[in-house]
Amino acid sequence: MSKDNGAHRIATLERLLPSPTGANPSSRRLGSTRGCLARSPEIGGPVPFSSPDTPGMPAPSEKTAWDFMPNEQESGQAAIVATTQLDHARLGKITPEMEVVARNEGHLSPEQVRDEIASGRLIIPANKIHLSHGLEPVGIGRASRTKINANIGTSPISSSTDEEICKLEWALKWGADTAMDLSTGGDVDACRQALIRASRVPVGTVPIYSMIIGRKIEDLTYEVILAELEKQARQGVDFFTIHAGLLRSHLEHVKERLIGIVSRGGSLIAKWMTHHRKENPFYEMFDEICALMRQYDVSFSLGDGLRPGGLADATDTAQLLELSVLGELTERSWSNGCQVMVEGPGHVPFDQIEVNMKLERRLCHGAPFYVLGPIVTDVFPGYDHITSAIGATAAAFHGASMLCYVTPKEHLGLPKREDVKQGCIAYKIAAHAADVALGIPASRDRDDEITRARADLEWDKHFELSFDEETARKMHEEDMPEHEGYCSMCGHDWCAVRINKELPR
Amino acid sequence: MSKDNGAHRIATLERLLPSPTGANPSSRRLGSTRGCLARSPEIGGPVPFSSPDTPGMPAPSEKTAWDFMPNEQESGQAAIVATTQLDHARLGKITPEMEVVARNEGHLSPEQVRDEIASGRLIIPANKIHLSHGLEPVGIGRASRTKINANIGTSPISSSTDEEICKLEWALKWGADTAMDLSTGGDVDACRQALIRASRVPVGTVPIYSMIIGRKIEDLTYEVILAELEKQARQGVDFFTIHAGLLRSHLEHVKERLIGIVSRGGSLIAKWMTHHRKENPFYEMFDEICALMRQYDVSFSLGDGLRPGGLADATDTAQLLELSVLGELTERSWSNGCQVMVEGPGHVPFDQIEVNMKLERRLCHGAPFYVLGPIVTDVFPGYDHITSAIGATAAAFHGASMLCYVTPKEHLGLPKREDVKQGCIAYKIAAHAADVALGIPASRDRDDEITRARADLEWDKHFELSFDEETARKMHEEDMPEHEGYCSMCGHDWCAVRINKELPR
Repeated sequence: MSKDNGAHRIATLERLLPSPTGANPSSRRLGSTRGCLARSPEIGGPVPFSSPDTPGMPAPSEKTAWDFMPNEQESGQAAIVATTQLDHARLGKITPEMEVVARNEGHLSPEQVRDEIASGRLIIPANKIHLSHGLEPVGIGRASRTKINANIGTSPISSSTDEEICKLEWALKWGADTAMDLSTGGDVDACRQALIRASRVPVGTVPIYSMIIGRKIEDLTYEVILAELEKQARQGVDFFTIHAGLLRSHLEHVKERLIGIVSRGGSLIAKWMTHHRKENPFYEMFDEICALMRQYDVSFSLGDGLRPGGLADATDTAQLLELSVLGELTERSWSNGCQVMVEGPGHVPFDQIEVNMKLERRLCHGAPFYVLGPIVTDVFPGYDHITSAIGATAAAFHGASMLCYVTPKEHLGLPKREDVKQGCIAYKIAAHAADVALGIPASRDRDDEITRARADLEWDKHFELSFDEETARKMHEEDMPEHEGYCSMCGHDWCAVRINKELPR
Repeated sequence: MSKDNGAHRIATLERLLPSPTGANPSSRRLGSTRGCLARSPEIGGPVPFSSPDTPGMPAPSEKTAWDFMPNEQESGQAAIVATTQLDHARLGKITPEMEVVARNEGHLSPEQVRDEIASGRLIIPANKIHLSHGLEPVGIGRASRTKINANIGTSPISSSTDEEICKLEWALKWGADTAMDLSTGGDVDACRQALIRASRVPVGTVPIYSMIIGRKIEDLTYEVILAELEKQARQGVDFFTIHAGLLRSHLEHVKERLIGIVSRGGSLIAKWMTHHRKENPFYEMFDEICALMRQYDVSFSLGDGLRPGGLADATDTAQLLELSVLGELTERSWSNGCQVMVEGPGHVPFDQIEVNMKLERRLCHGAPFYVLGPIVTDVFPGYDHITSAIGATAAAFHGASMLCYVTPKEHLGLPKREDVKQGCIAYKIAAHAADVALGIPASRDRDDEITRARADLEWDKHFELSFDEETARKMHEEDMPEHEGYCSMCGHDWCAVRINKELPR
């Protein structure tokens, strides 16, 4: 083949291929890849790091948190008592927490962190009480790296505070950026308190769980709700899942579903509304709840009580109506000076993930999207850390800012220590793969280092760079206790990397 | 909230959302989902089942195998001796193998299978010898369901024919649609023979592996190549990986890489070309190889000797130049009456998967794409069944027809029994998730059944419908030996599904 033919081929290929548009995820621009196909990052705009839009996707909102200012700030009359990170950002102040987030992200300046918070696209869930007990602030938003959450907590079937503390530490070891205490068994108050004190990462809860301990859901009152929220805020919880978007009028759409409501909070509230023939109390009391949360700077995680529980119900009217209300509540949170992220599904076929992410971006004006999975097939119980890591990668690429892990035990039972590890690792994979795909600066550096160690057949370095060093080492040594210049997969004669080293450079 | 407001919300949502375009993957149209966002299927056209194109993607080729007819058929002079499935399809004949494929797919008629084969978009790798020993034909192409391949085979470090037969049966139990025997240790001829006889699914090989047993790669001759191919064809191998697209002129582009050549076949051929200062012998002898393979109807799997070995080298010039040559070789295979699929990467960041799939569709005129993974991050050795199942799902959604599994042992050692199972399951997940996302008819039916079993809290049915029933059952019973109407994850009081059943219908 002549050189000319090669040049002709390259020219033809160039014409066929889209030009790289995203940023280079390798800080040293290593290797020969043509470059990232994400959108060019626009930190400070509506698409900080973003996937290109498949035709027909909803465009980003033209509004931000700046369009939903508290009356007090807008009028400029009353003296503003800045309380939340959002308040400070709006006033132009860079808090110590913003500094920490910028330092940990690496690719963001404190000013950028502040501006993203002011626009509502990034939050730092950091309760003042927890900050006083050593919380390391974490930023959640599209300008930052993708975060993962590990759910822990007791159940009535299995409960021990010590075990949950161990699970928390274990989850942190395997990379959890936040943890949610979903305890429903044993002394949940003591367990929550212990977890917050033990946790250097933000802790979230779903307060309605505790509200029905020793009480039927029908007996839940406005007073009980506010008292429980106040107690948990005072304990230092950093974010609350509040299912305020599920309205009475939505319930008729649930009837069309194959598996009605699968959110615990959602089903409890549905039962309350049906029994009392009244609107969702969290919706009715939303401004009071905001006032309470603002005091401590507890962030909202607006719950998706109507998330689908199977592929058959994905992206349906019930789910989308609730999301639309969550968009309004996002606006109201901002008007009340509160930080807010929005929760999302769940069970979603792979083709529908992008539109789910981009619809939230539109309706909720870029507020961070915090999604559970999503699971992309229902028939693999025992492997839902994998079915959902697939969906989570697509979700993070197309718009999610935080991924709630799913463990192999999902749909089957309460996760134990090993399940927590497997869930965390599957989600670190998803978050990291999306960060590289989005072109987040330096996100590929460790991949490049390990690739180089492979090219050099430096096994020890290869293991040290592995996310789970011990497992990688053990698997390798199963057949080959000594580290030769090849492995048991190909053996010496067929080792491509070894042969490759013999080629002239 | 008034009814009107709900109606207004729904109208707003309708305006924002793309209309469902794909087919309904539920044969009974169950549930409330809005529908599939894949392209409308066009079986008989260039995009049988296809994802929508992100802007900038290469359009499908306007050519098919019909544009690359053998001289004999084109001229109509010589009597045509139809040998391969492609030959028969071109002559309008429906073979018994096409009948079986149509029956097993369910959504395709024998005529559609024939027409897809004639156009080169579907293959049935079925060596006449293997057919006489009970091969159950399998269709690989975009009109059919996505297939998965399991690699098995001995290595010089670990080899036993019995163990490989067990691994084969084990892989078939966990859903492998084809198997490749990549043996390089022990009596590889006997092992291959035994595997073909034991396998009801198509068996593929990479014949160059056997060509260097007892021989340095430099000593490989044209005669040795043809003799080995003839021997394996006569044994009944259904498809050969032939690395004919890697040319001498491509090697200069390898130098820019972080990790040069990671394909075993590719590295061996590179070494041969460098030593002899001659062109790739598989490329030079391509027509002779076609003639030999056509006799037995061995299908080509055109190997990607220059696939990237790390994210840093993905979609680079070396890889794409080879793919461009594979496009030409696809044309030549068709001109020689041979069935052909094309192999693809490897290690690809999530943002670059779609363009890789659509470039192959263009350059290789819709010939089935058979990809390895791709892995979407390099830093998780020990978990590469997950890192690659993520890439594989995106690959199958955007254009791949068969997925070569990657086991947890990838980059570390030779997979064992449990690794084979984990690899197969991760890839069944990927293939199935993509089939549902593409709207392949009836592909969601089992998901819907299991969703209904969940809604009804019918645990036994739930387990029976699980892909890995035993694992699901074991995980559930860990905390709850009896099957109550809830599980240990939430317990009785917080079980959303139980509460849901109490809501009025």
